[in-house]
Amino acid sequence: MVMKESKGAIVLLSGGLDSTTLLAMAREEGYGLYALTFRYGQRHHQELAAAKKVTEAFPVREHRVVEIDLRAFGGSALTDNIDVPKTGTLSANIPVTYVPARNTIFLSYALAWAEVLGIGDIFIGVNAVDYSGYPDCRPEFIAAYEKMANLATKAAVEGETPISIWTPLMYLSKGEIIRKGVSLGVDYGLTHTCYDPAPDGLACGFCDSCRLRIKGFAEAGLVDPLPYRQ
Amino acid sequence: MVMKESKGAIVLLSGGLDSTTLLAMAREEGYGLYALTFRYGQRHHQELAAAKKVTEAFPVREHRVVEIDLRAFGGSALTDNIDVPKTGTLSANIPVTYVPARNTIFLSYALAWAEVLGIGDIFIGVNAVDYSGYPDCRPEFIAAYEKMANLATKAAVEGETPISIWTPLMYLSKGEIIRKGVSLGVDYGLTHTCYDPAPDGLACGFCDSCRLRIKGFAEAGLVDPLPYRQ
Repeated sequence: MVMKESKGAIVLLSGGLDSTTLLAMAREEGYGLYALTFRYGQRHHQELAAAKKVTEAFPVREHRVVEIDLRAFGGSALTDNIDVPKTGTLSANIPVTYVPARNTIFLSYALAWAEVLGIGDIFIGVNAVDYSGYPDCRPEFIAAYEKMANLATKAAVEGETPISIWTPLMYLSKGEIIRKGVSLGVDYGLTHTCYDPAPDGLACGFCDSCRLRIKGFAEAGLVDPLPYRQ
Repeated sequence: MVMKESKGAIVLLSGGLDSTTLLAMAREEGYGLYALTFRYGQRHHQELAAAKKVTEAFPVREHRVVEIDLRAFGGSALTDNIDVPKTGTLSANIPVTYVPARNTIFLSYALAWAEVLGIGDIFIGVNAVDYSGYPDCRPEFIAAYEKMANLATKAAVEGETPISIWTPLMYLSKGEIIRKGVSLGVDYGLTHTCYDPAPDGLACGFCDSCRLRIKGFAEAGLVDPLPYRQ
């Protein structure tokens, strides 16, 4: 018996909780996995190590790490030498950890790789529930991106490979994402979340990103396998 | 008397004939110039040297050269080790020199820099007349990109800085572009056009790009200051 090779999808993988769940969801839907990670001058470089561990735990067809230099333009606490805020409350405004045009750039690289591979499905783990105020995480941004992408590439314009941007996490709470991942066998001990980890890699437990994760595990009624610094 | 500083614009500058004319047109409209050039593994690296010479001849506020690695994904004669075609006729189909998602990626970096600078005007030298068949050079692509960009960034979403993508070359013939540039004092001897230059930097005169340029100067009734190999 000849096995028909499954359709491929590109999955944007940071090595965090959301994108690791996303990878498991794309696999559940039967896609062959092409994981795409960016090294963009982020201070939380443990994320990259986590992405590698995750792709070793999953049967991915390929994992590409693309080097991009957002620091060339500055403008964010995640890439500049500015203190990450630990206010204890999530800001109602857009946080200083915002990286300009990040998802626009990430999706554009995904689009390039999709066209080279001849596939049209791209998964990105954006979320509108536990919303941190990033404009490029909203459904109207994704819809506009998809429309643009279908006018941008040879394969889409010629009708061979329409582009679809999939966002299955969009309307899930953090607790729901975690329950979904656990049901799919995700080991969250492999993932990385903290914006401001200690030199030994331990999560701080206090940045906005850690707080959302801790709250999510509490909502899910599950134990976070990750150790925290304090 | 205090001079009011003019509004800034980002101009995508390859160092070629079109984008150099574009820079002159943005200056004519009174913009302060932020030139953005990409090093993307192109074989015609003389373009980068030309971009530098052009920005020395113009009063640009800043010139950034961003390194991006499209070779990570392959898929083009411009970045792969494939012969550039010299068929003598422009292909009716999309040429193999197509770089996947190139303008999408370039505009996304421009968008990131625009947000950091707090400006909303981006100039790109795409053209629908001497059309080489790149889908991401068409007006419908640019319109969709602009719409997406206005949903992507903090400054646009908050209404402070709407994004405008300007394409003043869109409906000009190559001859009209050249006449316009000459009227604005552009020295086309600084620009680079050839896809397949000799090791000494001389243009081949036979690739699609050289042919369009030569035809443009003929249409304009002007002499191309650039020397050719043959």
